[in-house]
Amino acid sequence: MISISLPDGSVKQFDAGVTPMDVAKSISEGFARNVISASYNSETVETSTPLTTDGSLVLYTWNNDEGKKAFWHSSAHILAQALEELFPGIKLTIGPAIENGFYYDVDFGAEMISEKDLPAIEKKMLEIARGKFEFSMREATKAEALEYYKKQGNEYKVELIENLEDGTITFCDHATFTDLCRGGHIPHTGIVKAVKLMSIAGAYWRGDENNKQLTRIYGISFPKQKDLTEYLELLEEAKKRDHRKLGKELELFTFSAKVGQGLPLWLPKGAALRERLESFLKKAQKKAGYEMVVSPHIGQKELYVTSGHFAKYGEDSFQTIKTPNEGEEFMLKPMNCPHHCEIYKSKPWSYKDLPKRFAEFGTVYRYEQSGELHGLTRVRGFTQDDAHLFCTPEQLDQEFMNVIDLVLYVFGSLGFENFTAQVSLRDPEKPEKYIGSLDNWEKAENAIINAANAKGLNYTIVPGEAAFYGPKLDFMVKDALGRSWQLGTIQVDYNLPERFELEYKGSDNEMHRPIMIHRAPFGSMERFIAILLEHTGGNFPLWLMPEQVAILSLSEKYEKYAQKVLDLLENDEIRALVDNRNETIGKKIREAEMNKLPYMLIVGEQEEKDGTVSVRKHSEGDLGSMTVEAFSEMIKEEIKKNTIEFNV
Amino acid sequence: MISISLPDGSVKQFDAGVTPMDVAKSISEGFARNVISASYNSETVETSTPLTTDGSLVLYTWNNDEGKKAFWHSSAHILAQALEELFPGIKLTIGPAIENGFYYDVDFGAEMISEKDLPAIEKKMLEIARGKFEFSMREATKAEALEYYKKQGNEYKVELIENLEDGTITFCDHATFTDLCRGGHIPHTGIVKAVKLMSIAGAYWRGDENNKQLTRIYGISFPKQKDLTEYLELLEEAKKRDHRKLGKELELFTFSAKVGQGLPLWLPKGAALRERLESFLKKAQKKAGYEMVVSPHIGQKELYVTSGHFAKYGEDSFQTIKTPNEGEEFMLKPMNCPHHCEIYKSKPWSYKDLPKRFAEFGTVYRYEQSGELHGLTRVRGFTQDDAHLFCTPEQLDQEFMNVIDLVLYVFGSLGFENFTAQVSLRDPEKPEKYIGSLDNWEKAENAIINAANAKGLNYTIVPGEAAFYGPKLDFMVKDALGRSWQLGTIQVDYNLPERFELEYKGSDNEMHRPIMIHRAPFGSMERFIAILLEHTGGNFPLWLMPEQVAILSLSEKYEKYAQKVLDLLENDEIRALVDNRNETIGKKIREAEMNKLPYMLIVGEQEEKDGTVSVRKHSEGDLGSMTVEAFSEMIKEEIKKNTIEFNV
Repeated sequence: MISISLPDGSVKQFDAGVTPMDVAKSISEGFARNVISASYNSETVETSTPLTTDGSLVLYTWNNDEGKKAFWHSSAHILAQALEELFPGIKLTIGPAIENGFYYDVDFGAEMISEKDLPAIEKKMLEIARGKFEFSMREATKAEALEYYKKQGNEYKVELIENLEDGTITFCDHATFTDLCRGGHIPHTGIVKAVKLMSIAGAYWRGDENNKQLTRIYGISFPKQKDLTEYLELLEEAKKRDHRKLGKELELFTFSAKVGQGLPLWLPKGAALRERLESFLKKAQKKAGYEMVVSPHIGQKELYVTSGHFAKYGEDSFQTIKTPNEGEEFMLKPMNCPHHCEIYKSKPWSYKDLPKRFAEFGTVYRYEQSGELHGLTRVRGFTQDDAHLFCTPEQLDQEFMNVIDLVLYVFGSLGFENFTAQVSLRDPEKPEKYIGSLDNWEKAENAIINAANAKGLNYTIVPGEAAFYGPKLDFMVKDALGRSWQLGTIQVDYNLPERFELEYKGSDNEMHRPIMIHRAPFGSMERFIAILLEHTGGNFPLWLMPEQVAILSLSEKYEKYAQKVLDLLENDEIRALVDNRNETIGKKIREAEMNKLPYMLIVGEQEEKDGTVSVRKHSEGDLGSMTVEAFSEMIKEEIKKNTIEFNV
Repeated sequence: MISISLPDGSVKQFDAGVTPMDVAKSISEGFARNVISASYNSETVETSTPLTTDGSLVLYTWNNDEGKKAFWHSSAHILAQALEELFPGIKLTIGPAIENGFYYDVDFGAEMISEKDLPAIEKKMLEIARGKFEFSMREATKAEALEYYKKQGNEYKVELIENLEDGTITFCDHATFTDLCRGGHIPHTGIVKAVKLMSIAGAYWRGDENNKQLTRIYGISFPKQKDLTEYLELLEEAKKRDHRKLGKELELFTFSAKVGQGLPLWLPKGAALRERLESFLKKAQKKAGYEMVVSPHIGQKELYVTSGHFAKYGEDSFQTIKTPNEGEEFMLKPMNCPHHCEIYKSKPWSYKDLPKRFAEFGTVYRYEQSGELHGLTRVRGFTQDDAHLFCTPEQLDQEFMNVIDLVLYVFGSLGFENFTAQVSLRDPEKPEKYIGSLDNWEKAENAIINAANAKGLNYTIVPGEAAFYGPKLDFMVKDALGRSWQLGTIQVDYNLPERFELEYKGSDNEMHRPIMIHRAPFGSMERFIAILLEHTGGNFPLWLMPEQVAILSLSEKYEKYAQKVLDLLENDEIRALVDNRNETIGKKIREAEMNKLPYMLIVGEQEEKDGTVSVRKHSEGDLGSMTVEAFSEMIKEEIKKNTIEFNV
């Protein structure tokens, strides 16, 4: 008999040789039907693996990441079998599960396959799946394994095996198919009910461009057809909401090859959007006692030597800027904090003056390899909604909590209701990665955890994810498509005050070091706007829309009245435009819809006579006719209803 | 007989040998008493020079720059005589008139003189002046001149004479004193009634640091004691208003040795001031149809090669920024125009879309030698209130005039009532200095002159002062101390559209080049704020003040009421602060006065009981007590009265 403990803490006795699936069945037949993979003593096992020692068992379903991994890894085997059957003589290499699905890298030899072949492969995969073939693991000696693949002439698998130790080599068999494999499968192929092969790409063997280029086939699979349908719809929606596409369509930003990669140029509508977001945050920050400052975009190398950024980033960053004669060296600023430290240092402070909260929409420049750049989410220059708070140790907890309030206010106002937090602590095993004393790190970590608890945040603690200069609290929001994005960050810093020798005179008349908090609720304006675009599909909250109303004239005859309506709306600070082109009203409406204009006002003879407008709402349609004043009131009411006040 | 024409166009006959002073007397004895120098046929002459040919005569008084120049040059002779009498054996070198006064560079040999010696020298100068010695010119051969100074052992004058051509050498004598001199004196020393020697400095002979260091004595002189008194008062006032001093006292900005020279850090009050100025201009710009854009602070070298800035500035500027691996080169942007050209290029335009007006408060970086840096007026990083207008040739004149309107609105709103304009054209002798075709230059120059005429500007035309890429209209304002500052600029540019191949589709369906206008009414935020500080002495217009009202509690007991007053004012968007320190009310008032707070509200028992405040106005004193509402109304009324609306 062996003792098996389960995640709920229960411990049960079983005959040695019991399988994870047997254990699942002993819990309930219904539960067992959903179990697709397992781990024993933290190691991946098959659901059919006989268990012979005491241990702790975790059983996974499709709803666990581990379950999905086994599902997709098993699907890669099915893909490989289908390929072997359809294209005899090909050479298989590796086929792992990935974040969304799986791939297999294959040497097709002289064979050329294309996207057109994918439906036939999918069909073959489903045929295999329906056979409900069990996956079964089998040990082999290194010699046997090498012989097997040498006979096939598969130099890739031979190379893989040569790097393995004898005694650790296993194969997985299902149906007529065999593959070198470390294990971790679902019970049988029949669980895979839906398959979609997404794309074909080239991939170098072992990722090395000196090696042969293989064909990589990407796929995804699901236990239900419905899941696949939903997934494909989500993909379609994500494509529509791609911020690069929307940014172009809505004329928010552009890139120029001459200006340089990863350096966005904000077009008028985008710049207005940015400014509105900045004004929104400035207003809340003012209430919260922040003061705006302005600092230059460069600083002497010495500044970053003092801050430690040069040692950390200097080599891999934009290189220094020299001056013609004077032997000076400047750097593009990668962060605003050193500048704000120098602003703090510009005068003496007393404890009565603290906390000081210096805020700046500070544009920083960080080098990223061109291959890493992506729209507005990965750029080389971006504007942080940055602030640095300088406070006494007694004020730290309260200040940290106030910052959390501000971050939550920002998320609430912009429609991100679904978020989690992550407390990033140092990796206790690698003290060399961090600057500053252990004692200070502990204080800072505790301050964050205390504040997160006090504010009732839903958070996880992740050791090893701290910045090199301090621990932090990051917020992850879920967008409308269920995707997670890292947004705002709050970081405690005991190190920069030390490095810059910042001081204040305490009530004891002695000089003390202030503590610094770095924080950015948006993170960066560029990234935030990208996420907001993908979250809302360009249908921003009404208060934020670059243009709120399109006034569409039925013909050029009504230009004057359209202009009058515009003036009335502008007097009420409603942002409107007139479309007075010589086009059909149908075309004007279609274009306004495409441009995400929240409201369209149609004006013609009747409207001019009555002093009214015919109102259409974006994606909803006709709201009937009303006076301009009534419409204006309606808009203002809608904005007011959806605007939260920030209260300190 | 000779014919002499005068500036009023009249021509009179005189006996040959008549002097300018004789001519002056023939006009009127009263006028002649004020004449102190003259030019004949555009050459400087003495008022005692006999005129022997026909020609045109200009007579100068103290009120002409030429008159002042002769006055100060003559004063330098008097200084030299005084020095020779007081310090026998010294060697004189050169002693010119400068913008404000004159100096003389002297080799004092072993003698050491200091500021303490200046009063005695001034006294000696006035003694000489009172002698009413006439200045008289005398020709000498090169040999005579050399002999004279060789005998004295004055190697400096010998060197000067050696570089002169025989036949052009003259001496000036007065009293017992003789000096090598080209001429241009007042009639006699007695006209100099007031003298002030300002300072002593070291100066290398001929400005070359390899030469011997001489002693330079700076002085200024006037025809009336009252003029000197006023000048010294003005200097005193200018010192008090020095923007570097006020910027520190009012906590507007600071510099940090670590961040780098010439890179201002804006403190909270300064940043708020800047933002208010920016908002003011944004509002007017919006009315004038401008659209804000945002562009990065760097661009690829290629961008500036295209624009021509690299060829023009590359070597003498901040050096390029390299990336670690990719062989890229970026530059800190010295101007925003190339970025705005790329924004223009981001989509196709029709003539119906033009003019497009892209505005940005764009921070640019330009290298200046550290010795050239000065407070906020000469910096290495500054924010231009920049905009670029893209228009058709038909729109140019109107657009240029609209820009002039905007510039005049800015000056009017900020209390600069006294200004002139300068039209800077190309130097027709040096075409190699400019880029672009002659034809385009002519069109652009005419557009500027037409607009300046249409707007009735008081302008001068200065050939040779154009930017390398186009002609421009600059505005010079006079500040409260009568000093001139160059502020806003408007420039027409046919060249960048050519270099960037900018286009629009005309009504003829063909592609055309737009014309570009660069303009910046403030010029740069840094420089403008410096000038505004010196113009107003920190007493900005009320609407612009960082803090408008100080609420001073009579004792800490009234903190709550002070806070209530603050809240009421803030509700009315009046910027106020509470001074609730445990200090005397006298001290609080003094500090508020020093900090230029426009209004002080004193609150104590009586005020709390009555719901009133006791109002003091900066530098004016008590205005009596009133309700908070009444005070608030008064402030709002004052702001409204002093705020001009911009109408297009």
